[in-house]
Amino acid sequence: MLRLTFTEVQQKLEAVLVKLGMEPTRATACAKLFCETTQDGVYTHGLNRFPRLVKTIQNGCVDVNASPTRVSGFGALERWDGQKGPGNLNAQQAMEQALELSRAHGIGCIAMGNTNHWLRGGSYAWQAANAGSIGMCWTNTMQNLPPWGGLDPVCGNNPMAIGIPRQAGPVVLDMAMSQFSFGAIEKYRKAGEQLPVPGGFDPEGNITCDPAAIEQTMRPLPVGYWKGSGLSILLDMTAAMLSLGRATHQIPSDFLTESGLSQIFIAIHPATLGPTDECERIADAVVASIHGCKPEKEGRTVRYPGEQTLKLRAENQQLGLPVEEATWAAICAM
Amino acid sequence: MLRLTFTEVQQKLEAVLVKLGMEPTRATACAKLFCETTQDGVYTHGLNRFPRLVKTIQNGCVDVNASPTRVSGFGALERWDGQKGPGNLNAQQAMEQALELSRAHGIGCIAMGNTNHWLRGGSYAWQAANAGSIGMCWTNTMQNLPPWGGLDPVCGNNPMAIGIPRQAGPVVLDMAMSQFSFGAIEKYRKAGEQLPVPGGFDPEGNITCDPAAIEQTMRPLPVGYWKGSGLSILLDMTAAMLSLGRATHQIPSDFLTESGLSQIFIAIHPATLGPTDECERIADAVVASIHGCKPEKEGRTVRYPGEQTLKLRAENQQLGLPVEEATWAAICAM
Repeated sequence: MLRLTFTEVQQKLEAVLVKLGMEPTRATACAKLFCETTQDGVYTHGLNRFPRLVKTIQNGCVDVNASPTRVSGFGALERWDGQKGPGNLNAQQAMEQALELSRAHGIGCIAMGNTNHWLRGGSYAWQAANAGSIGMCWTNTMQNLPPWGGLDPVCGNNPMAIGIPRQAGPVVLDMAMSQFSFGAIEKYRKAGEQLPVPGGFDPEGNITCDPAAIEQTMRPLPVGYWKGSGLSILLDMTAAMLSLGRATHQIPSDFLTESGLSQIFIAIHPATLGPTDECERIADAVVASIHGCKPEKEGRTVRYPGEQTLKLRAENQQLGLPVEEATWAAICAM
Repeated sequence: MLRLTFTEVQQKLEAVLVKLGMEPTRATACAKLFCETTQDGVYTHGLNRFPRLVKTIQNGCVDVNASPTRVSGFGALERWDGQKGPGNLNAQQAMEQALELSRAHGIGCIAMGNTNHWLRGGSYAWQAANAGSIGMCWTNTMQNLPPWGGLDPVCGNNPMAIGIPRQAGPVVLDMAMSQFSFGAIEKYRKAGEQLPVPGGFDPEGNITCDPAAIEQTMRPLPVGYWKGSGLSILLDMTAAMLSLGRATHQIPSDFLTESGLSQIFIAIHPATLGPTDECERIADAVVASIHGCKPEKEGRTVRYPGEQTLKLRAENQQLGLPVEEATWAAICAM
């Protein structure tokens, strides 16, 4: 494992993107999002995903210089077309506009269709929280999750992210609707470990913690069984309906052709209702109540969502971004 | 089990509420919400909860004739004070105003503090869907759920409901953040059955399907383990911050004194962006993709959220509301 400076990695990614035809300022912003994701400890969706972005640029799924356009709008609600631009830049721009609407109307919503994989959903929740708004966003995905009671993966794992502004550290949740991604399941299998909690079905139709059995059936569990299954369906439906974009069942089921996604970005700006001191006190008091909970394991502290991110961010800022040697070699060869 | 007509039950509940001082038109609306909940098959939150409402009126938690008031507002975002009115009437009025805002601004949001238990969250999601808007609402609750990694129930099970309008039948999800309520866990124990999926911890700290063990530890599971735990925290925080109301840790932990809840009501009106024919087609196509999924059990059809409700509603409309004899006797004696 290498430790590289943020700047070094960002410049390398930028150079690759520019070589692929992306305008330099866009390449800087796109590379920064990748580096921030790795810096925040979300290694699955940072640098390790960069080679996949490159392939989807090369195969034409992603149009490097396309920007989302406003199709229609009414007050605080707007429908956008992502024009097949890079998913992370598109999502950042959509949240930026939702934030703008939230400052003008208290709340704002952008529904964007025809976009690409947004990489790390949490990026846009942090973006909202850093701008003093509560942000909430979700995306549909290709078919990768069977609904409760079904065998075929007709649903997506449809990640959702929520961010809450707080001076002492935003509270940010970033969750997919499957209990574990196939990437995580593979990791456990390779390490010869069982999943910490049930994550799917075995060939006999029993719920299991065995990663190999789940890879065999391709039946991962939705979070909360029937509950996450239902939520996945509604997130897909709302995103597709409001954007007039594709629903999960229409999205190509392959990492390299998964495109034309539909997404929702909602921002609420508490400051439009007056000074936010009291909001801060309320957020701090909730955090204190979580920290005050008796931990399962002695000596630990129960964490709020996003707390670990701040710790990893600080660590990676000090030590440099952790980068797998093979990934770095592949990126340097691009 | 009795089968009584909707009208008969509604008139009885109305009479009890009027006797308790509620204005007749309000009593009619409040009784109707209870009857609709039972009619829709959500028996835990319909008539069976009426005696508890009566007790909270008698002990002063619920002010029968109080209506929510607007504290502040900016564009499509408003902060309301529930004035300790009846939770279901308050929630209905708040969603009505969110719907009004959604028609005026595309999207609308009401944050309401100082309110009471809203009974069935799905009621307000159906209300939005029936008005042609996508509705999304959530409430905090008293402390009844330990966060992931913790032993004390410092979180609430904070139910959330989402409704999507669709001519062929709205798609409606109503879910709490615990995998099972304590009421459901008790039912399984009394029936001598195990839970169908893990629902909490046993005294040794293992995840279990044994309802008696969970009642012993009082450690039910959040949906999706760490994921639902995180979502519960963020739903509580957003509701309390935006309404400047109480957070879960401040709400009395007793069914009869649980009051001063904070809630969020969001409505999005797709028709503000143009004709909704295409939205309808998209919703129908998603439903068709779910129905097309190969079922786990031969002969079954995989259902979308809300589908079963329409079936139970039709059944109960035909046969009458199913009412437990003891509950009916108790209500008739009020």
